[in-house]
Amino acid sequence: MTKLGYAVVLAAALLPRATCLAQTGQAGVFSVQDDGQWQTSSNAHRLSKFPRIHPDGRVWFRFEAPETAKSVQLHIDRKTYDMQKDSAGLWNVVIPGAEPGYRIYSFVVDGTSFMDPGSIPFYSNGNVSVLEYPSPADSFYLPRHVPHGDVHEHWFYSKVDQKFRRAFVYTPPDYEKNPNKRYPVLYLQHGAGENETEWTHSGLVNIILDNLIADGRAVPMIVVMNNDFVYRPGDVRGRMALAPDWAGNFRDLLLDDAIPDIDAYYRTIPDQQDRAMAGLSLGGMLTNQVGLENTDTFSYYGIFSGGVVGDPTTAHHGVMADAAAFNKKVKLIFESCGSLERPESVRGNVEQLESHGINAVLYVSPNTAHEWQTWRRSLYHFLPLIFHSD
Amino acid sequence: MTKLGYAVVLAAALLPRATCLAQTGQAGVFSVQDDGQWQTSSNAHRLSKFPRIHPDGRVWFRFEAPETAKSVQLHIDRKTYDMQKDSAGLWNVVIPGAEPGYRIYSFVVDGTSFMDPGSIPFYSNGNVSVLEYPSPADSFYLPRHVPHGDVHEHWFYSKVDQKFRRAFVYTPPDYEKNPNKRYPVLYLQHGAGENETEWTHSGLVNIILDNLIADGRAVPMIVVMNNDFVYRPGDVRGRMALAPDWAGNFRDLLLDDAIPDIDAYYRTIPDQQDRAMAGLSLGGMLTNQVGLENTDTFSYYGIFSGGVVGDPTTAHHGVMADAAAFNKKVKLIFESCGSLERPESVRGNVEQLESHGINAVLYVSPNTAHEWQTWRRSLYHFLPLIFHSD
Repeated sequence: MTKLGYAVVLAAALLPRATCLAQTGQAGVFSVQDDGQWQTSSNAHRLSKFPRIHPDGRVWFRFEAPETAKSVQLHIDRKTYDMQKDSAGLWNVVIPGAEPGYRIYSFVVDGTSFMDPGSIPFYSNGNVSVLEYPSPADSFYLPRHVPHGDVHEHWFYSKVDQKFRRAFVYTPPDYEKNPNKRYPVLYLQHGAGENETEWTHSGLVNIILDNLIADGRAVPMIVVMNNDFVYRPGDVRGRMALAPDWAGNFRDLLLDDAIPDIDAYYRTIPDQQDRAMAGLSLGGMLTNQVGLENTDTFSYYGIFSGGVVGDPTTAHHGVMADAAAFNKKVKLIFESCGSLERPESVRGNVEQLESHGINAVLYVSPNTAHEWQTWRRSLYHFLPLIFHSD
Repeated sequence: MTKLGYAVVLAAALLPRATCLAQTGQAGVFSVQDDGQWQTSSNAHRLSKFPRIHPDGRVWFRFEAPETAKSVQLHIDRKTYDMQKDSAGLWNVVIPGAEPGYRIYSFVVDGTSFMDPGSIPFYSNGNVSVLEYPSPADSFYLPRHVPHGDVHEHWFYSKVDQKFRRAFVYTPPDYEKNPNKRYPVLYLQHGAGENETEWTHSGLVNIILDNLIADGRAVPMIVVMNNDFVYRPGDVRGRMALAPDWAGNFRDLLLDDAIPDIDAYYRTIPDQQDRAMAGLSLGGMLTNQVGLENTDTFSYYGIFSGGVVGDPTTAHHGVMADAAAFNKKVKLIFESCGSLERPESVRGNVEQLESHGINAVLYVSPNTAHEWQTWRRSLYHFLPLIFHSD
């Protein structure tokens, strides 16, 4: 039987009394016809066929609520849609489309908001369901038939929190084939609601870098993704670590535990010229706070939706005041954000840095906010600029 | 401030009118006193302090339901507990204890069952919340201060489903330090409700093997964890792949795509004597069906809660009928299950295999059912027996 044939049989089984092509838009029984073109979302659970995306852009969500449920809603892209029962008692809604990329959504049953059980979960401020909505202009993060690097779950002991911690470590496609080759390293940090899984699972850094390396546009490199949150025994756990300076625990973790461990475990080039740091939001703030206070350790910096470095004559105790001296060590300051964030602030700072003689690069992601589409694109524009200095 | 001090302050903030030591057990306002000894579950989300486990074994669950909720329940270990509102409007229950190890649980709000948003999610038949309940008799899966291997997310192209697939690959702690050393490989399969993440995230194979290697009780080895489910273009996706024989798609994936890829990418010893296959439930059935039909490929077999090999005079077209010839190739058949499953069937088959002259080993996990505690223990008993044949 053809794929289309199966889809028709499935549709018949799932929707025995489907009679019209679209949601009625009125209270009452929902019905939609499966025309065989709906594709299950890439994030759907293996046993789920929803959400589905139609080539015309519509998205079909479905949820099985108990008979007693009075109201079921979908929340996505800052909008709330009422869902309707179909003849089988399942709640459905078809929406005209979503914003491009990584769209967090939830169902609301009689006021209780929760994840779609039919979608694989993502870690965030709480756990969330994510619709990966197609964005033809952003093919750079789609997997291609090119060599793929590995993403390692790597455990190392930290003297700061006195336990083993998990980092994610990307090694490039040729890593295992070149036992004598050493690689530069990017330390890449997540945002405040996230953890060490997010740059790969949500950000797709490994896919983006596989593609850039295959195209000869980025240098093969190692990427290390640590958790921003570091608690000494006795600290109250929360959004930030308690420390005399707010980033102090993380700084000690990164400089004293993580980098020495990575340099010992992997075939890195363990010097300043071959080390970069970047991050999104809180991770960008850490890049600014921890990274630029340690220019003997890092040579390239990326701050994505994480504020700005500030006035080069005074920032970080004047480390940039002598631009010529600074440029001998630091090769790049990259600042970015979405166009719906505060691009004028970022643009102004990059111009200020450039006027001062520092190699600063601006990227503003079109029509995106404080969200993963901004950060995927920022990373994509940042990676080709690093480790090319000599 | 001391840790205890913080806990008292927190308790005061969280439970301003706590007046008694335990759940009242009656309808009405829930109250419990935080005595500073409750520990947040290891699987709790970073921003959540529940569930909590007390040294005396009790477990405290909490959920924030909307004001309109009429009934909130906890479902765990095949039991349902009513939760009660506290003075802050949060729903709580304290249960006397749980079964040891990996306990799946859910909340039920006015009939709708869902995950605990305060706990990190695990992949299963649907997504689930998991309480890791202490089991002092099972310290073998607790992380120790020993060298840790990496778990790689590894992408490779499959000709069967014509796309890139993700496998998880454990490399032992000394892998990166010995660029000329090659390692034996265990192919390890998950159960029907799971995916390729589960042997590490739920089964803790990496922690178990780190500990066994550190103690000199297991040979350093690579472990490859593929997804059981393989669909050719046009197949209807479901619990099993459609194929002339039910395991055919998986067999082709494993033998034609996965093993050649692993032998090319990692430093394996690419021969039959240094290759093992094992799995739980459906993964055990695949080990039996695919593995034992290919004794030129694998030398050691582990079937955990996955049935039995069967009558050695007839099973698999009589491949075991000549025990001496079989033993030259196959060094071990390990069969296990929980004592609450069908141990007599497994015991009987192992005795039958032994009587026939085949090296068969039985393991029955005390007081466990078809669950992760059985499979963690099975793996722990299986690993020291493989790759020691010469």
